Amino acid sequence: MSEATSKGARDPLAIAEELARELALTAVERDRRGGTPKAERDRLRASGLLGLIVPRALGGLGAGWAETLRVVRAIARADGSLAHVFGFQHLMLSTAELFGTREQWEPIYAETAQKALFWGNALNPLDARTRVTRTPGGGYRLDGTKSFCSGALDSDRLVVSAIEEGASRLFIATIPSSRAGLTMLDDWDNMGQRQTDSGTVELRGVEVREEEVLRTPGSLGSTRATLRPCIAQASLVNVYLGLAEGALAEARRYTREQSHAWFASGVERPTEDPYVLRGYGELFLQLEGARALADRAGEALERAWQRGEAITVEERGAAALAIATAKAATTRAGLEVTSRMFELTGARATTARAGLDRFWRNLRTQTLHDPVEYKLRELGEWALNDRLPTPSFYS
Amino acid sequence: MSEATSKGARDPLAIAEELARELALTAVERDRRGGTPKAERDRLRASGLLGLIVPRALGGLGAGWAETLRVVRAIARADGSLAHVFGFQHLMLSTAELFGTREQWEPIYAETAQKALFWGNALNPLDARTRVTRTPGGGYRLDGTKSFCSGALDSDRLVVSAIEEGASRLFIATIPSSRAGLTMLDDWDNMGQRQTDSGTVELRGVEVREEEVLRTPGSLGSTRATLRPCIAQASLVNVYLGLAEGALAEARRYTREQSHAWFASGVERPTEDPYVLRGYGELFLQLEGARALADRAGEALERAWQRGEAITVEERGAAALAIATAKAATTRAGLEVTSRMFELTGARATTARAGLDRFWRNLRTQTLHDPVEYKLRELGEWALNDRLPTPSFYS
Amino acid sequence: MSEATSKGARDPLAIAEELARELALTAVERDRRGGTPKAERDRLRASGLLGLIVPRALGGLGAGWAETLRVVRAIARADGSLAHVFGFQHLMLSTAELFGTREQWEPIYAETAQKALFWGNALNPLDARTRVTRTPGGGYRLDGTKSFCSGALDSDRLVVSAIEEGASRLFIATIPSSRAGLTMLDDWDNMGQRQTDSGTVELRGVEVREEEVLRTPGSLGSTRATLRPCIAQASLVNVYLGLAEGALAEARRYTREQSHAWFASGVERPTEDPYVLRGYGELFLQLEGARALADRAGEALERAWQRGEAITVEERGAAALAIATAKAATTRAGLEVTSRMFELTGARATTARAGLDRFWRNLRTQTLHDPVEYKLRELGEWALNDRLPTPSFYS
Amino acid sequence: MSEATSKGARDPLAIAEELARELALTAVERDRRGGTPKAERDRLRASGLLGLIVPRALGGLGAGWAETLRVVRAIARADGSLAHVFGFQHLMLSTAELFGTREQWEPIYAETAQKALFWGNALNPLDARTRVTRTPGGGYRLDGTKSFCSGALDSDRLVVSAIEEGASRLFIATIPSSRAGLTMLDDWDNMGQRQTDSGTVELRGVEVREEEVLRTPGSLGSTRATLRPCIAQASLVNVYLGLAEGALAEARRYTREQSHAWFASGVERPTEDPYVLRGYGELFLQLEGARALADRAGEALERAWQRGEAITVEERGAAALAIATAKAATTRAGLEVTSRMFELTGARATTARAGLDRFWRNLRTQTLHDPVEYKLRELGEWALNDRLPTPSFYS
Repeated sequence: MSEATSKGARDPLAIAEELARELALTAVERDRRGGTPKAERDRLRASGLLGLIVPRALGGLGAGWAETLRVVRAIARADGSLAHVFGFQHLMLSTAELFGTREQWEPIYAETAQKALFWGNALNPLDARTRVTRTPGGGYRLDGTKSFCSGALDSDRLVVSAIEEGASRLFIATIPSSRAGLTMLDDWDNMGQRQTDSGTVELRGVEVREEEVLRTPGSLGSTRATLRPCIAQASLVNVYLGLAEGALAEARRYTREQSHAWFASGVERPTEDPYVLRGYGELFLQLEGARALADRAGEALERAWQRGEAITVEERGAAALAIATAKAATTRAGLEVTSRMFELTGARATTARAGLDRFWRNLRTQTLHDPVEYKLRELGEWALNDRLPTPSFYS
Repeated sequence: MSEATSKGARDPLAIAEELARELALTAVERDRRGGTPKAERDRLRASGLLGLIVPRALGGLGAGWAETLRVVRAIARADGSLAHVFGFQHLMLSTAELFGTREQWEPIYAETAQKALFWGNALNPLDARTRVTRTPGGGYRLDGTKSFCSGALDSDRLVVSAIEEGASRLFIATIPSSRAGLTMLDDWDNMGQRQTDSGTVELRGVEVREEEVLRTPGSLGSTRATLRPCIAQASLVNVYLGLAEGALAEARRYTREQSHAWFASGVERPTEDPYVLRGYGELFLQLEGARALADRAGEALERAWQRGEAITVEERGAAALAIATAKAATTRAGLEVTSRMFELTGARATTARAGLDRFWRNLRTQTLHDPVEYKLRELGEWALNDRLPTPSFYS
Repeated sequence: MSEATSKGARDPLAIAEELARELALTAVERDRRGGTPKAERDRLRASGLLGLIVPRALGGLGAGWAETLRVVRAIARADGSLAHVFGFQHLMLSTAELFGTREQWEPIYAETAQKALFWGNALNPLDARTRVTRTPGGGYRLDGTKSFCSGALDSDRLVVSAIEEGASRLFIATIPSSRAGLTMLDDWDNMGQRQTDSGTVELRGVEVREEEVLRTPGSLGSTRATLRPCIAQASLVNVYLGLAEGALAEARRYTREQSHAWFASGVERPTEDPYVLRGYGELFLQLEGARALADRAGEALERAWQRGEAITVEERGAAALAIATAKAATTRAGLEVTSRMFELTGARATTARAGLDRFWRNLRTQTLHDPVEYKLRELGEWALNDRLPTPSFYS
Repeated sequence: MSEATSKGARDPLAIAEELARELALTAVERDRRGGTPKAERDRLRASGLLGLIVPRALGGLGAGWAETLRVVRAIARADGSLAHVFGFQHLMLSTAELFGTREQWEPIYAETAQKALFWGNALNPLDARTRVTRTPGGGYRLDGTKSFCSGALDSDRLVVSAIEEGASRLFIATIPSSRAGLTMLDDWDNMGQRQTDSGTVELRGVEVREEEVLRTPGSLGSTRATLRPCIAQASLVNVYLGLAEGALAEARRYTREQSHAWFASGVERPTEDPYVLRGYGELFLQLEGARALADRAGEALERAWQRGEAITVEERGAAALAIATAKAATTRAGLEVTSRMFELTGARATTARAGLDRFWRNLRTQTLHDPVEYKLRELGEWALNDRLPTPSFYS
């Protein structure tokens, strides 16, 4: 029985914040090391948070999206990699619900909550190197390669996609990570988000059973199903924001505890320097704007989700717009905070021991998931032409 | 009987938006002319909106601050000058409540709602040229000059301030604008906000009765009384935001209806130009952030106001911070929108007939009310040092 | 005999700076009035500067482009409108040289210098409403309308363009402004650059003689001829920069002489305020960058010009790039300086009497001549793809 | 005999560019490793460039400052660490000339050129932990600790500073790095500039002879001596600029050779994407401005240097201003380029193998040498108050 459910009324956010404090203790060292954060992933399993979005009736914590995203954010303050795979855990789960039938997702949800299953991602829709073919027994067989498979290593379940001859939509299925023919390569070595295991998955004759295929409505197959990219993007938004918040918090601690006043400042302590104060005000201002938009986006997603199958194109579009806006704002504020924070701490804070550059490296890496310039274009289409974002795997 | 009350359930925001549509028709011409917008002020009187914040029990529309500020914003979309004096109408009213006794402000509220009284401002705390002396009969006498007296011309009532010998706080009183010795000069001729009548008031032996003096708690004399600058700043926030929203709306209309695609763009219409789309996206993004913060600030003010005398320093500080954040964000977004909009409309939109430069001129003028750099410093004091803004007439 | 030549060795820049001081005295009033600055145009005629680029052998001052552009900049510090028509005076003159034969331009240069002729612009290549037809006598006849004809009113000579049936290039000719059939409308009423007379010219059966047509090499008809848009853009660069420099100079004077320290600043005078100092530093920094690029662009143009017919596509491209870079930089710095200057002067500087908003209005208007976004694209084509700007009337 | 002198007429810049190509091959790996780049430092020794600024008459390459700084820049394109210690090599040399007598610096210059001596820095004026005491034999003895001693490890000579009881100026001397009592700690482990060896030097009873002390005019002891901080800052300017140029060059190569067009872009290749083009244009624009200012600063330094002892406070101030301007501009452009470059290459460019984050890490670290906000303040003091920068070790 998980920590969260055993403690009954414990607030998921409180659990996450406690977990974040633990993660922070080793974040610098783990950033250096890279690789799979096995112990930390097991801590997440034990926390009960892997079933955060799973309804209480199915054994989960029954959180809505606004709360789930706040938990993603809280983890990201300490650890961008864990936050990303944790956010995508919920994306994978909801993929089953959005693209599959109730008969499919209910057991998936229940089992995930009960066994604290960790989900990995092998869906990358832009990587078309995996093919699906029918097998004589009525099933399928996958062959190929997928890149950017965050959280696939050490996962229990996987969402995979492939190109199906003659089909207009992606073939998407959920399978155990232990399925024969799957190899998760330990080949993710990046400048940031170093413990997301966003490496390569090789598929060699991987069998998929008919009931594992998410076909009704299938990928982006209904207005509701097009909420999937909204969830993905909203999760990223909160990873970005959490990273920025974590960065500012560490900068603040450094300035207060370790920085010296500049000799020409005329003040005793850096906390009284007019330019340091202005600098913190500036970064706080940008974060506050990003925070307000991220909160609004979370609420918009929750509203859209709760509309169920009744959701209209306009309602979906409103959520997508709020999320795209928050995406651009958190990207921008985050890059600013994680780079300019050093001007407020001074040169000594660049020591590798403090590891403060990990915030920028993590954020810079993760914000490249899809180009923010095309988000600006989407916002412009709305602002100028009243056109809602066209649903795709990135909008 | 006013339009609003006669129509019973009519939404104040709907009244304001209808009024804004009217104001827009003459905004360009009135901007050129400057001076007192007498007809438009009378339309405001007739609308019932001058008693917007006055409780229904006292004959007003009973709006809270969040709603009142949204009305300010709606008017500012069409007319920054009217929005400013309308916003300060409510600042003047609330000054009576915050600085005076219930015996003072209840009749003031009631009379304002009933007679649709327009309030003017002669309080400028930085202009120390007006002195108060006691008169033999137990009253007072004011002599001196006040600058930046927005809305004093054509006002029915006035809030005045003066320096009282030996007193630590400002002497503040409410008097009829017709009181002998008052001269409102028609000397406001500015590059923007040209119909705010923010000119000079001369006071020559102006008598003030004891019961007109707001002395309990007096100016900033209690934690609750320090909400006054919050109201002033929140009103400005919504003038800025409304101006920016109005500007973007006009730019959009121009681009859609009158602009041509640039010859090198390779598209037929400017609405398909990738850079025009990016530009609208950019400005929309900034406005959305400012809007979210302005909404949050309005709600914070309302919460603080509703706490009544029980409000704590921390609660007041939270509202002040939210408002200062919104102030900086709307200033910045507004300047950006009102200047860069022209890059999205093209050169022809600079014709004086369209009058599109009024948005920048109005915003640039009004955003100088107090320096935004000191707001950044305040935000920094909070972000770095946990220090709440020190209450003053500007914080 | 003109002032300049009569005074022998007088430096054109010194003449221009003296003239600028005069123009500054009436700039605010003339900005309000708009219309044709007849007296000031006559002052320019008398100054000898209209023949600034004309070789000494032909009676002019014999300046190169770098010097000519510095004179444009000096005038723009005081008066953006005069600077623009003065810059375009030299664009019109050089059009004769670049698009016509020596037999055509030498007399034009000589007569311009001798009689101090003012040239107007009726060439707008994007306005295709003017047609040319052949007349029985071997000449041509123009009919139509041209917009944005800067300096056409009160001009002595005109460069006109028209669409010639079956021709791939624009038909371009130089004619006296008094030619029958020409009507210069006094219809320029704009938010900025109000005395450039950039209004409409109507052409009704306007006769053009064969020898007035600039046909060899004709419009953009040789690599050298493609220097024309370089000259146009370089002239605009210096109008923008001069406006920004003038704005900062006036702001500085205001801060030093009239502003007050902000009550919360803790300093006696605004010139000691850390944020005011930072603000001036910021604007100075941007101006210095723009200035360095504008100087470099002027030198690049001069080098390209001096290459004569031997100029290569690469040499022309190098000049075009330097000018495009300076265009984007001066636009950006200029908008920043002319808008943020008010944060350094404070609210009182918005009085209409000071007229400080004219800098932003002038710059905002003139910088829309052609979209700066397409300049960024050109710079990107070079930086990424080694592609030089494709010559057009705007590149 | 060094490579440069042996090859006679070889251009120092060409030598540096060849060296840079070599350094680039191992830059990513060495960045990961950190520590002393012994082989590369020996390559620099062999190149002859260590005597770049040494007059030919004394056996050096006889370069001026403008050329020397261009060489620093060329090295920084490939390797920020080597560029920094190479730039400070020349700062150390010139320290002998500026703070000492001809009898002192001539042999130092000659020996440096002849033996290809590498100079290290143990001068950090803000670290006051080293004391000097007189020894009975008329010499001195240093005890204490110095931080941020770039290039001290593997150096041949050292400039050291200490606090002398009762003296108003720093005690500064040049000593062999092998002097007894000196320990250079290998304790520099930083997020950037990882091979500058900017660690700690411990001094335990280090003897200094009278003739090793730079006492006439001593530290900042004459107007000419105050050129030292100008040289230090100008060197940093070129490290920043070179890093930014190197970053953009690598981004460009990546976009052209490895990036894919975004699926929603509608173009085949990323080099045709309108937003990618705009992005390169934007970064190029910022670099061009920074480059123009850096070139100008180099020329200003050279002019000031060549004035010798005749230099006036105003001439020194002009150089200091040009350098401060370039410092702020290169810092800003560099941070922008090294962070936003990833938006132009896409997510795959974040692989650790490419090591593209080293540019930002190097630049972010090195730009914290002293706070750029105080440079803005200095520029503001000039722009507003005509006050030249007050000479200090940082201005």
